[in-house]
Amino acid sequence: MIIDCHGHYTTAPAALQSFRDAQIAGLKQQLDVSLDARAPISDDQIRESLEGAQLKLQRTRGTDLTIFSPRASAMAHHIGSEITSRRWTEACNDLIHRVVDLYPANFVGVCQLPQSPGVAPGHSVAELERCVQQLGFIGCNLNPDPSGGHWTAPPLTDRYWYPFYEKMVELDVPAMVHVSSSCNPNFHATGAHYINADTTAFMQFLTSDLFKDFPTLRFIIPHGGGAVPYHWGRYRGLAQDLKRPPLTEHLLKNVFFDTCVYHLPGIELLLKVIPVDNILFGSEMVGAVRGIDPETGFYFDDTKRYLDALPLTAEDRYKIFEGNARNVFPRLANRLKR
Amino acid sequence: MIIDCHGHYTTAPAALQSFRDAQIAGLKQQLDVSLDARAPISDDQIRESLEGAQLKLQRTRGTDLTIFSPRASAMAHHIGSEITSRRWTEACNDLIHRVVDLYPANFVGVCQLPQSPGVAPGHSVAELERCVQQLGFIGCNLNPDPSGGHWTAPPLTDRYWYPFYEKMVELDVPAMVHVSSSCNPNFHATGAHYINADTTAFMQFLTSDLFKDFPTLRFIIPHGGGAVPYHWGRYRGLAQDLKRPPLTEHLLKNVFFDTCVYHLPGIELLLKVIPVDNILFGSEMVGAVRGIDPETGFYFDDTKRYLDALPLTAEDRYKIFEGNARNVFPRLANRLKR
Repeated sequence: MIIDCHGHYTTAPAALQSFRDAQIAGLKQQLDVSLDARAPISDDQIRESLEGAQLKLQRTRGTDLTIFSPRASAMAHHIGSEITSRRWTEACNDLIHRVVDLYPANFVGVCQLPQSPGVAPGHSVAELERCVQQLGFIGCNLNPDPSGGHWTAPPLTDRYWYPFYEKMVELDVPAMVHVSSSCNPNFHATGAHYINADTTAFMQFLTSDLFKDFPTLRFIIPHGGGAVPYHWGRYRGLAQDLKRPPLTEHLLKNVFFDTCVYHLPGIELLLKVIPVDNILFGSEMVGAVRGIDPETGFYFDDTKRYLDALPLTAEDRYKIFEGNARNVFPRLANRLKR
Repeated sequence: MIIDCHGHYTTAPAALQSFRDAQIAGLKQQLDVSLDARAPISDDQIRESLEGAQLKLQRTRGTDLTIFSPRASAMAHHIGSEITSRRWTEACNDLIHRVVDLYPANFVGVCQLPQSPGVAPGHSVAELERCVQQLGFIGCNLNPDPSGGHWTAPPLTDRYWYPFYEKMVELDVPAMVHVSSSCNPNFHATGAHYINADTTAFMQFLTSDLFKDFPTLRFIIPHGGGAVPYHWGRYRGLAQDLKRPPLTEHLLKNVFFDTCVYHLPGIELLLKVIPVDNILFGSEMVGAVRGIDPETGFYFDDTKRYLDALPLTAEDRYKIFEGNARNVFPRLANRLKR
């Protein structure tokens, strides 16, 4: 079984964006719109949005199950108030739930959270509980920067976040550390903000004792871990200079990387420096880069091809494509029994 | 000849920091201290600060000349006012000038700039001119985020920066894109802020036409280009999606990377994906990571060893260790004639 741990519903029916547009227009008029995204979207529209995109790519590329969440760049937690973010988040998560109900063999849900700048992460607990306990989701995307590129929240290792982590631990679900769009003109979303957030989160973990406080808390750092594997020597050296334990012991029971790195040399490096137990297959499809690489003739984000090109043992292949996902997302096992 | 394009005076005599401390203390009292860093530092103190550090490491590692600038993390452009930054910058640059005068065969100067949040980059022109024309410096370190982790300045591709670029072009000097310390608790300086800034700058260049406006403007992105080479497929793909020209044509006449990547797999990747004409040997010594790698028994930042371990042609070795530095820093040739 091949599990893609990182897919977003980037192809949702246009009615979802219309709802969002109405919501944002309402903000300008000091109104909180209470539209319901579910009403105007039919099951057929959902099927159509997936058949020519994610489902087709699963078939073409030979992957089985995508751990699926709302479009990350559209989370835009910086827009509006806490209630704006909650309504938008519920609409997006409900739509993922409908996708999973329509295609239970192909998708399993991971939720967006109703984060908002200055709002305590504990306020996201209720939506996490709803998604995990009522909708059958197996994890969440946690935004370390709800301000969208201004980085006004405390670091992920601050006690500010602990009430949310307590619920993650209780429910036994991991979080993917995933920012959204940037309203800071310095940061291109998919080309800078995403990668920077990955690197930033890892260094926050490195300098903290977060996993002493939460030994079973688990994070996936997407986009191949940002800059971290490329600079693995720097991180090992910084840990040593800062008198932290070796990284394998200090972080790698709790921190995992996906394979959203869009060329063979990058994937080769990832597998060379990061222990195989910490790597989860992911493609981010349909996502950040949509084109075909003229150097290979295949999609940039067809990351399975890069892995297939490497001489992996059967055991290592199993871990990357399935076993590690089962370990990091324990609730996946129940979903797969159905 | 082996030229290290990236060295900072991290070992300066304590009197420099005392000057800075007095300056910062003066700020609290609403005073602008006009101390002169040169007075209390003797030539012998300078010699002593280098003999056991940079000079010893040059000898041990077999490198010849270091392109040398003030300690990057101490630039701290976010502290105080424009005049604070100018006085501190002049003190730091004057000290680099004294180093170069004492050891002209070992060091050549690159200057810090008197940047300050909200102050137009054109205000740094005078110090650049002073350093290049009077002190014989061959380049500068340009901070894309003088706010120290709040990213309040316009992107490097904004016309805001053009008056400074005009002077760089006129003087024919490159800039290393180099942030300083971070006063945003999200970003560890050397473990996150530095690497993020590198990645951010590259993506700014990618989305702009800056080099159409300034065809001879040259930037070095340090720390091996941040996350860029590891994600080279992503950047090639984003350029294609955004209808930009291929990166070799669009950016690589103007953008260069150093080799401050502290393990062999990272350097291997860098050389695999980035054209050899765009790679300049650098070590950042004595810098971000000071320890010995227990896996190799050698200093993490002894980046020459990683390059020596790779099967480079004589021509490629020459380019990385000398030729590219001569091209990117044309004023180096005059310095080396003396």
